[in-house]
Amino acid sequence: MKFLRFQYNNKTRYGFIEDNRIIEVSAEDYLNDNHKGLRKCPVNVKILPPVNPSKIICVGLNYKDHADELGMEIPEEPIIFLKPPSSIIGDGEFIIYPNMSREVDYEVELAAVISKEAKNVGREDAEDFIAGYTILNDVTARDLQRKDGQWTRAKSFDTFCPIGPWIETDINPHELEISLHLNGELRQYSNTQNMIFDVYELVEFVSNIMTLEKGDIIATGTPPGVGSMKPGDEIEASIEGIGTLKNKVIYSK
Amino acid sequence: MKFLRFQYNNKTRYGFIEDNRIIEVSAEDYLNDNHKGLRKCPVNVKILPPVNPSKIICVGLNYKDHADELGMEIPEEPIIFLKPPSSIIGDGEFIIYPNMSREVDYEVELAAVISKEAKNVGREDAEDFIAGYTILNDVTARDLQRKDGQWTRAKSFDTFCPIGPWIETDINPHELEISLHLNGELRQYSNTQNMIFDVYELVEFVSNIMTLEKGDIIATGTPPGVGSMKPGDEIEASIEGIGTLKNKVIYSK
Repeated sequence: MKFLRFQYNNKTRYGFIEDNRIIEVSAEDYLNDNHKGLRKCPVNVKILPPVNPSKIICVGLNYKDHADELGMEIPEEPIIFLKPPSSIIGDGEFIIYPNMSREVDYEVELAAVISKEAKNVGREDAEDFIAGYTILNDVTARDLQRKDGQWTRAKSFDTFCPIGPWIETDINPHELEISLHLNGELRQYSNTQNMIFDVYELVEFVSNIMTLEKGDIIATGTPPGVGSMKPGDEIEASIEGIGTLKNKVIYSK
Repeated sequence: MKFLRFQYNNKTRYGFIEDNRIIEVSAEDYLNDNHKGLRKCPVNVKILPPVNPSKIICVGLNYKDHADELGMEIPEEPIIFLKPPSSIIGDGEFIIYPNMSREVDYEVELAAVISKEAKNVGREDAEDFIAGYTILNDVTARDLQRKDGQWTRAKSFDTFCPIGPWIETDINPHELEISLHLNGELRQYSNTQNMIFDVYELVEFVSNIMTLEKGDIIATGTPPGVGSMKPGDEIEASIEGIGTLKNKVIYSK
């Protein structure tokens, strides 16, 4: 099932997709297994980012083939960092190229969305705490990442976290093709089976550090092929079973 | 004026302190210059963290005397990192020593609280976007900070961000004594005039990266004397004109 947030009659609404229609549900029922459809809505609504999380936890190097590409060793433990909620945009919104950077990269990632409060969760129980999966582009100012050493500034600019278009609840996260096209050309490609730490291990690791809330996002790292974008570029980030997240890059004012 | 959040009759309430009494205000009036007092409340209420921010932005090395102590060069630009909202606790709550670490340090900091949406704010206008100031202890698992290189895990554990007890609106942030006592012994001491980047420069720098929301926190770095805590220790973090934030360290279960 595909859950999504959308705007209709100037209000933020929640729903799921069924037979190419959007069925609205209450905010409380959003992402829940048991939900009542309130009414059918038109499909030509504005799609919003599928969640408004209290935090976005990302993982550094987490694909074996990406580690090989960089000539780096497989890490012993995940390296985590945070992106601020203010960096989120939805499908179809613009990635704004900031004045502070001269090198802005795309990074397609599978993102797990948390379904309920999660603290000290074991790997074997992790699935119970995941509502579903969406696509995330971990946009990164590579020059500032190198300069600062710490990754936060490079990854925190407004519009640097496109997510969406929706949350798919019925997929196995560990056997999905993942890819990114820049202006129609394939740039990133792998399969989520190449993750170093799988999604459930990441939920265990992160929830033993910090309490996760409903709607929080864990982004699971990017596959090989990262590279730069420039204003005017169109980015299509795709994951098998979910769909495609499209965003265009524009100049800052 | 000292604004605070507190619990009374099992509800989260907002108010300010006047003549040793707490005057309740509406959630909308909290941190605003113009506010109507709704009623007087008893002073023996449970004090809550003074804000529930959408993000906490912290700055690395930002005191000249701390840089001297470490033998490090003065940075050209602030190095920022984020702490998750889930790490916040209030005055009197326990700092839980996590199982993952063997070296947990205190770091007293002056924290600026944002009053309204702030984006691309210039240094000269920054004061208009600050509601007031509180005390923040940037608790850090020093061993994990060294191990990871990235600082996020080390600074993100639940209870690793004590803030409070309240927000003082009427102080000059650039001439305040700042100190920390461990079990009654002075461990950290400086004056906020020793900051490398002052509070207004930090608001400019951060708001040119990410949009700040009402209640967001910018922590302005720690003075010399950081060191380790162990379970049983009592920490008193004090800033002139604000007060003292007290927290005790306990073992994880």
